[in-house]
Amino acid sequence: MTLGELAELLGAELSGGDGNQQVLGVSGLDSAAPGHVTYVEDERRLTAAEAGPALAVIAPMGLRAAKKPLLRAANPRLAFARALASFYPPSRMSPGVDPTASVAKDAALGEGVAIGPYAVIGEGAKLGRGTQVHALVAIGRGVEIGADCVIHPHVAIYEGVRVGARVIVHAGSVIGSAGFGYVWDGEQHVWLPHVGVVIVEDEVEIGANTTIDRATTGQTVIGKGTKIDNLVQVAHNSLIGSNCLLAGQVGISGSVKLGDGVVLAGQAGVSDHVEMGEGSVGAAGADIIRDVKPGEIVLGRPARRIKEQMRIDAAAARLPDMVRELRELRKRVEELEKKL
Amino acid sequence: MTLGELAELLGAELSGGDGNQQVLGVSGLDSAAPGHVTYVEDERRLTAAEAGPALAVIAPMGLRAAKKPLLRAANPRLAFARALASFYPPSRMSPGVDPTASVAKDAALGEGVAIGPYAVIGEGAKLGRGTQVHALVAIGRGVEIGADCVIHPHVAIYEGVRVGARVIVHAGSVIGSAGFGYVWDGEQHVWLPHVGVVIVEDEVEIGANTTIDRATTGQTVIGKGTKIDNLVQVAHNSLIGSNCLLAGQVGISGSVKLGDGVVLAGQAGVSDHVEMGEGSVGAAGADIIRDVKPGEIVLGRPARRIKEQMRIDAAAARLPDMVRELRELRKRVEELEKKL
Amino acid sequence: MTLGELAELLGAELSGGDGNQQVLGVSGLDSAAPGHVTYVEDERRLTAAEAGPALAVIAPMGLRAAKKPLLRAANPRLAFARALASFYPPSRMSPGVDPTASVAKDAALGEGVAIGPYAVIGEGAKLGRGTQVHALVAIGRGVEIGADCVIHPHVAIYEGVRVGARVIVHAGSVIGSAGFGYVWDGEQHVWLPHVGVVIVEDEVEIGANTTIDRATTGQTVIGKGTKIDNLVQVAHNSLIGSNCLLAGQVGISGSVKLGDGVVLAGQAGVSDHVEMGEGSVGAAGADIIRDVKPGEIVLGRPARRIKEQMRIDAAAARLPDMVRELRELRKRVEELEKKL
Repeated sequence: MTLGELAELLGAELSGGDGNQQVLGVSGLDSAAPGHVTYVEDERRLTAAEAGPALAVIAPMGLRAAKKPLLRAANPRLAFARALASFYPPSRMSPGVDPTASVAKDAALGEGVAIGPYAVIGEGAKLGRGTQVHALVAIGRGVEIGADCVIHPHVAIYEGVRVGARVIVHAGSVIGSAGFGYVWDGEQHVWLPHVGVVIVEDEVEIGANTTIDRATTGQTVIGKGTKIDNLVQVAHNSLIGSNCLLAGQVGISGSVKLGDGVVLAGQAGVSDHVEMGEGSVGAAGADIIRDVKPGEIVLGRPARRIKEQMRIDAAAARLPDMVRELRELRKRVEELEKKL
Repeated sequence: MTLGELAELLGAELSGGDGNQQVLGVSGLDSAAPGHVTYVEDERRLTAAEAGPALAVIAPMGLRAAKKPLLRAANPRLAFARALASFYPPSRMSPGVDPTASVAKDAALGEGVAIGPYAVIGEGAKLGRGTQVHALVAIGRGVEIGADCVIHPHVAIYEGVRVGARVIVHAGSVIGSAGFGYVWDGEQHVWLPHVGVVIVEDEVEIGANTTIDRATTGQTVIGKGTKIDNLVQVAHNSLIGSNCLLAGQVGISGSVKLGDGVVLAGQAGVSDHVEMGEGSVGAAGADIIRDVKPGEIVLGRPARRIKEQMRIDAAAARLPDMVRELRELRKRVEELEKKL
Repeated sequence: MTLGELAELLGAELSGGDGNQQVLGVSGLDSAAPGHVTYVEDERRLTAAEAGPALAVIAPMGLRAAKKPLLRAANPRLAFARALASFYPPSRMSPGVDPTASVAKDAALGEGVAIGPYAVIGEGAKLGRGTQVHALVAIGRGVEIGADCVIHPHVAIYEGVRVGARVIVHAGSVIGSAGFGYVWDGEQHVWLPHVGVVIVEDEVEIGANTTIDRATTGQTVIGKGTKIDNLVQVAHNSLIGSNCLLAGQVGISGSVKLGDGVVLAGQAGVSDHVEMGEGSVGAAGADIIRDVKPGEIVLGRPARRIKEQMRIDAAAARLPDMVRELRELRKRVEELEKKL
């Protein structure tokens, strides 16, 4: 592909340079090589890119370069994503069922489905057109998976779970395991049967070794377009909205409701029955024990509005001095009182 | 089943309604459908239930209803659990060994054992009567598992681990992996061999993708009736008592001792060698670095007694104001000192 | 093995006792049995060991014992590790490929490689001499693994990952899954393709159910001799130095740099792009959001230098009293002001 063709593909404005030059690869600033197109977000990084070996640079509309051609785009990070996707299309499994896969007789496989070695597909399961099931995956009885999904090795999807189209699940994740709910009968913890399901909507992506529990009754739902990272826990009956982002090691307790577009940074936790409004954000490690309003950003343990928590954190650094100052001040007041 | 039969099964008192009506299902308030029996804990929820489609409502002894029959029980949540269990018995694998399973010749299988496709059972392993081993499970050499256990897909149980009866392990969990202990020899970290075992006692239930490490020497023990959620870490040589509850993403460091009935909420962590007394509780995200007395509830990072920590958290909100007030007060005292 | 032979093997000084006595086992203080050699670090533990059934005690150079022979060593914990290793050598798989394993025709297997039941080895993968791949492992296309590695059940290694020699990966861990990076295009989250790799250097050890993501472009690197515990998350493009220790449930965000010998205790988290200098330490649960200098120890949320944070934590306990004292002091100052 030439630089000019790439610019056209990305809807970017080519500034400087010869549009006929061959693009050999696409890479971030740290790994750019000769012939590569790289990408920057600001002037400082552009200076670094110009000093490097890259052929050309994807950059925001405003920037100018002296030494390298620029591909200026309104959303340069999006242009970078598209350039990567066009240069490095994901490898696909060949359609067909590996002879070693264990597929129930009454499983329904759509056109072009691929199933890898030693995958196990339960009775009555349905796999949509073009879906790829990697090696050693366990799909339970009656599971329904839509079209063009990719299920990586060692994923386990329990009985009755329903997965939409274009969903990606990375290795080792578990969908539909029993919720964690018990009743003490005076002698032991009696399990509250979890007979509900999990619904994973279209375009959801789930990282590695993440766990999503089925509902007690009813549904645990992961909304359309939501992306979940590795080692995340989503407990029974939680309702996750559309286009949410849940980063690594986030924990969602039971019956939580997240509005659309909620973002939770790494290791944040949300307590039982808490609701977070549309577009709200929990910072890394936030312990969210109360409802959060739409658009609000919360931080800390327990989580508070970010401005409040940052003022508290700043003041906390003064705390040891305050203890001393307070003691000293009390003495001075006592002195004054004596004098009067 | 009729309403009257269900009441009898639950030991509940049927109040109002026709005992001959057919019960079509059991579900929580949010997912109740016509013909279903649902359940509430208080008056407010009962009002909601009465406005919904359910046929009847499991409720505490004291409540009264105008529009729906009640099944009044001393422990309504327990009655609900039993109703769910009777309506939706868990699906069982058919007894027998799948022809694709890899079972060592000298493995001992009890009567009625079920082993799924591509499960691997190591040399000398013993599986008790009625135990179900799902697809793609890896059971190591010399592992002993008691009667009526359920081992879900992708569980790995390392060499020599001993599991009691009626134990459930959800998908992807690992029992008996090497403990994390190293000695620096001046040039590198030398692994301290972990040659002990893990003992999982009767009626323990373990969630998905949880990890339990074997002891350096001796035993890591999960006590009878203890329930562990998803993505929990239990390190080497820890001794977990009976009937504990460990919620999602809890982390137990090495050589920790938990008394019977200890409860740890989500993302709580317990440091090396810490002991928590019988019936003590660690709140969500608590960082427990010191011993906890029996019955004590602790909260925070570092964890303190809950009342103390809640007072600190409340005071923390005043901290930025305090910085200002303290400064102002010092000025006023200076003024006073000048005047005198 | 006799006590004298063990002393020689460990380079330890045998003090008291008959060097010809048979050693029957090696174990920690809590699990020592007659005939066993145990180990202590201090006088108090030595007193306990002398009251127990052990035959002899590995101890620091300075200690003296009245009742048991001592094996005195400069680094007694290292001597204990070596004694354990010599008494309990790890079990090895027999060389050879299990007939049920699915090995690509063009995979290259070194001499003495062992591959367990239902393991899946992708096209063009290379396994070094003496490497053991356990049952049900999934090795992707083009993966390269060095000599004498041990890959436990259910590990998934994605396409193109490169693993050095003498590496151990415990059950359920995932190496090379897609990084978590998205760009909002105004309507949906568009995935930033992660086309880089993961490099795992020699002597790295990885616990169970840990996840290591591949780089966007370039490399995620786990440096030589680094040890990683269970349920740890290492995100895309992070560069982990040599001989680091990452304890259970640690979370490393994207593009983090850890110098050599960094130690992170359980549940610590490191934010995007943070750098931690050589030999620095993050305490349990630390939320590390700013760069850390070499050798520095940080604690807390947000993490601060340990001395500062411990002073803050100590002062925090006084916080509720301070609120009251401040109020009282204000009143007294007001009184004084009135009087003047």
